[in-house]
Amino acid sequence: MQSQGKLYVVGIGPGCRELLTLKAEEVLKGADYVIGHKRYLDFIRDVVVGKIVESGMGKEVERVKKAIGLVEDGYVVCLVSGGDPSIYGLAPLVAEVIYRNGIEIDWEVVPGVSALNAASPLFGSAIAGDHAVISLSDLLTPWDIIERRLRKALEGDFVIALYNPSSRRRKSRLENAVEIIREYRGNCFVALARNVCRDGEEVMIVRLDEVAELADMHTLIIIPSSGTIVDGDQMITPRGYSEKYNLEV
Amino acid sequence: MQSQGKLYVVGIGPGCRELLTLKAEEVLKGADYVIGHKRYLDFIRDVVVGKIVESGMGKEVERVKKAIGLVEDGYVVCLVSGGDPSIYGLAPLVAEVIYRNGIEIDWEVVPGVSALNAASPLFGSAIAGDHAVISLSDLLTPWDIIERRLRKALEGDFVIALYNPSSRRRKSRLENAVEIIREYRGNCFVALARNVCRDGEEVMIVRLDEVAELADMHTLIIIPSSGTIVDGDQMITPRGYSEKYNLEV
Repeated sequence: MQSQGKLYVVGIGPGCRELLTLKAEEVLKGADYVIGHKRYLDFIRDVVVGKIVESGMGKEVERVKKAIGLVEDGYVVCLVSGGDPSIYGLAPLVAEVIYRNGIEIDWEVVPGVSALNAASPLFGSAIAGDHAVISLSDLLTPWDIIERRLRKALEGDFVIALYNPSSRRRKSRLENAVEIIREYRGNCFVALARNVCRDGEEVMIVRLDEVAELADMHTLIIIPSSGTIVDGDQMITPRGYSEKYNLEV
Repeated sequence: MQSQGKLYVVGIGPGCRELLTLKAEEVLKGADYVIGHKRYLDFIRDVVVGKIVESGMGKEVERVKKAIGLVEDGYVVCLVSGGDPSIYGLAPLVAEVIYRNGIEIDWEVVPGVSALNAASPLFGSAIAGDHAVISLSDLLTPWDIIERRLRKALEGDFVIALYNPSSRRRKSRLENAVEIIREYRGNCFVALARNVCRDGEEVMIVRLDEVAELADMHTLIIIPSSGTIVDGDQMITPRGYSEKYNLEV
């Protein structure tokens, strides 16, 4: 038991050991407790020396409260988040719980590589330059807000990364999103990256009308901008160099 | 000299050793050549065993061509990018040069932690949930496209991360952006993070009308959404848990 507790909210990257940061590896090794969802713990188990506490999907609030309680008892605790903790991870929930309850503990976020950073190069460079990041899950955000953001991102001609596109319960939301995208871009090409950096990694470029059938909750969908090059298995969003520089080699 | 060359486009994170990924450290150690801008090389010099080639700002095309030439000669080369190579880094340029010239070399992007992932927790959790990422640099993107994206992101009530807000040459673009933001959000609070994870790291929450004076090219600006809590030195964008769960501890 430590004399003084500390909470680390640790981004462990998209799903492979090699994309852990040096800092994440260090704090995972040094923690008394490492708390997270099974899916995220599996590839870091052998890094952890302390006690592992598995928690189920949808139990985020419980997990955060448990972690804070252990820190108050004097332990060093890592709360793990897939990808980066700010991007649909646990950092905002931890910050909110600490803020609303006026809790005084030592805590720190260890940023990580988000799924979009790992998915983009699987197609060449699908996401580049200005982009918008939207989750299609309406569990915490009302659908009208999600729809509005999707429309504005399409009107702004952003490259768009769609997280959490679908689950068995929410299949119809992805179908709604597909209809909205079609209004602006027709039956465009989109990139799908499933299980990025994990067993069963799969990437494909398909037409929009195939997406609802193919995407699941472990898929990241990339909607290209009007400037994006799509050719075979390549999706490349140029930064604009070719208009100012000679790119011939 | 290697029998077979390979190019790694390596994201080295926002500016400190500890946010390198394990993979980045490994490939930097193993490379014959490491090419990059001085600013990005400084904190990884002692990791590198091979030859370091420094290159100036604005010389990206030259740097990429040199790297490709060395790989064609059989060397293993790391081309370093600050943050993540897809997010305003070198990945899209490398992909475009290889694509347009039909070059056949072995190449791979090593994703990294982007500045926004490291900046967000410095305020609690400023960036969370859906967000838009926009560069204010009009060197490669025409200003009318940037302005349109900024307006659409504001209309969509995204949290917005503004990269490259200002330089001596482009001061007026930041002033233009401030005027646009004011139309939608008034003289709102914004978060500034300068030199994230580097010497001289500085964070502050200020009113919009102070931004043009305070932000420079090493500053990331975060514009909150309507749901973001701003209180003292905290900026927290809740995910929506408090409406569905009891967050009381």
